[in-house]
Amino acid sequence: MPLRTRLTERFGLEHPIVSAPMAFVAGGALAAAVSRAGGLGLIGGGYGDGDWLDAQFAAAGNQAVGCGFITWSLARQPQLLAQALERRPRAIMLSFGDPAPFAEEVHAAGAMLICQVQTVTQARQALEAGAEVIVAQGSEAGGHGAVRGTTTLVPEIHDLCARCGSDALVLAAGGIADGRGLAAALMLGADGVLVGTCLYAAEEALVHPTLQRAMVAADGDATIRTSVVDIVRNRDWPPEFTIRVLRNALVDRWHGREDVLKAQLADAARCYAEAAAAGDPDESAVIVGEAIGLIDQVRPAAEVISSMVAGAEAQLRGGDRLIVA
Amino acid sequence: MPLRTRLTERFGLEHPIVSAPMAFVAGGALAAAVSRAGGLGLIGGGYGDGDWLDAQFAAAGNQAVGCGFITWSLARQPQLLAQALERRPRAIMLSFGDPAPFAEEVHAAGAMLICQVQTVTQARQALEAGAEVIVAQGSEAGGHGAVRGTTTLVPEIHDLCARCGSDALVLAAGGIADGRGLAAALMLGADGVLVGTCLYAAEEALVHPTLQRAMVAADGDATIRTSVVDIVRNRDWPPEFTIRVLRNALVDRWHGREDVLKAQLADAARCYAEAAAAGDPDESAVIVGEAIGLIDQVRPAAEVISSMVAGAEAQLRGGDRLIVA
Repeated sequence: MPLRTRLTERFGLEHPIVSAPMAFVAGGALAAAVSRAGGLGLIGGGYGDGDWLDAQFAAAGNQAVGCGFITWSLARQPQLLAQALERRPRAIMLSFGDPAPFAEEVHAAGAMLICQVQTVTQARQALEAGAEVIVAQGSEAGGHGAVRGTTTLVPEIHDLCARCGSDALVLAAGGIADGRGLAAALMLGADGVLVGTCLYAAEEALVHPTLQRAMVAADGDATIRTSVVDIVRNRDWPPEFTIRVLRNALVDRWHGREDVLKAQLADAARCYAEAAAAGDPDESAVIVGEAIGLIDQVRPAAEVISSMVAGAEAQLRGGDRLIVA
Repeated sequence: MPLRTRLTERFGLEHPIVSAPMAFVAGGALAAAVSRAGGLGLIGGGYGDGDWLDAQFAAAGNQAVGCGFITWSLARQPQLLAQALERRPRAIMLSFGDPAPFAEEVHAAGAMLICQVQTVTQARQALEAGAEVIVAQGSEAGGHGAVRGTTTLVPEIHDLCARCGSDALVLAAGGIADGRGLAAALMLGADGVLVGTCLYAAEEALVHPTLQRAMVAADGDATIRTSVVDIVRNRDWPPEFTIRVLRNALVDRWHGREDVLKAQLADAARCYAEAAAAGDPDESAVIVGEAIGLIDQVRPAAEVISSMVAGAEAQLRGGDRLIVA
């Protein structure tokens, strides 16, 4: 049975679940699979690559999907937004930077603006930019993010919206991989969730199977926030954002020794590129969050979604029964 | 109406809420107030001070309470455990170190053993030591802790207990300050919560009112995990644990410059001691978590507990109604 929230009503979804636009990982097949399963799938526009973007929208076919960008990177090649908007996405998600310069173009094209934030200060900025949806992303999340936890960020941003008289939706992100996480997010005041790590383990994800096997085998203690992976990929991230990855030989070698790494970057970057192409989980980046400890198999995205919803329903019914009449 | 969980049943509580044994802050008056309100109050045995401990058990009067210790510090003066056990506490909570050497003494005295952990690895250790309760403490928490978030740590430790065939209770800690957090914790699989920051703002807490005013005024972006406060207090903490405090002038001056601080420690320590005695929120430590963004008043502990329970019930009833029949 479906869950009904403000998110499902406003977006016409069956389930209050949006998939994270994981750069290079969330292609059209994954986004379409999530939308087909009743959620909203987002293509990972990431740093921006026009040809890749076209190919992934094509792979999504006629399924309604959205698209996400890394805001500071989009600002360097803003024409990519128009390219995405031509494909009539349901929504554009912007993370990691000021969304204001792009809001009008998104709205003019009839798409919803989803802004992912990591602090209350950023949430205020997103509301001022006219975001319809705020994703409150906690530090548990895989990939780029910051330091605040999901448990406090979600209710605090919910309260901020109420104080501002805003009816923007709030989604919880970071650490949510099953029905327990979805149910907990709804209790915190979220209208739904944005999930990445559990879909990194989906069959449709553009991830080498060896990386998926590595994440499934690890427990939640095995990830770390670091800058090593960005240095070695020559990604020029603002220092307030780190990337959560599986702790592996690459990270153990360089984390805390970033200056040494920078001094021999050419060699390290070449080794990284080779390892990434080969799907080497020890010397490339397995970009996942703490929720890997809750994931024990690779399966189709539709199963991830349906089991999450079924689990959430069971938790919510059980929660109501905890109240002594 | 009360909430019934395995915690309330096994401990004979009205509400599934335990108060954190905040060192020097959670005295007998606060612990007794929490127990009187239907939860379980814990005296903050902290680093261990025999006279203070006696005075606080006396202040708790006939109210059943428990007591918590910092494990690595207790190991340096283990006689304090016997002193606490003489007062017939309901439970002894141990955090930050190996609980195994103390488990037998706790159980022989008829007290329950509560172990607070920050990783799955530590949870395994606590189960092996025979803990009846595992507190899964996320990084959102105020005071000492580590890096994993509440959202993932709670369900993962719940699953660990199930896999081990253990019937140990799991409490969620870190970021929980109102009914939304309690309801979310129950959805994550917790049997209850351990709360600190919201009781740092209780009238019964042994905190200078100026520090309480500072925390109430700040939002959740305003805390930070640091080692500065431990350095300046000459507290010899293992490096894997940092302390979350309100970011203030003291922290801004030294965070990231710890080596310089250590080189002029005598002066800095004297200034800190004076500021702490005077209740100066800029130059002493306001030891609170990210949940300060959810707290807007100082009030009696009983009100904190009753509003948390009422809020959780409202959320849980609302959650059940999200399911479309």
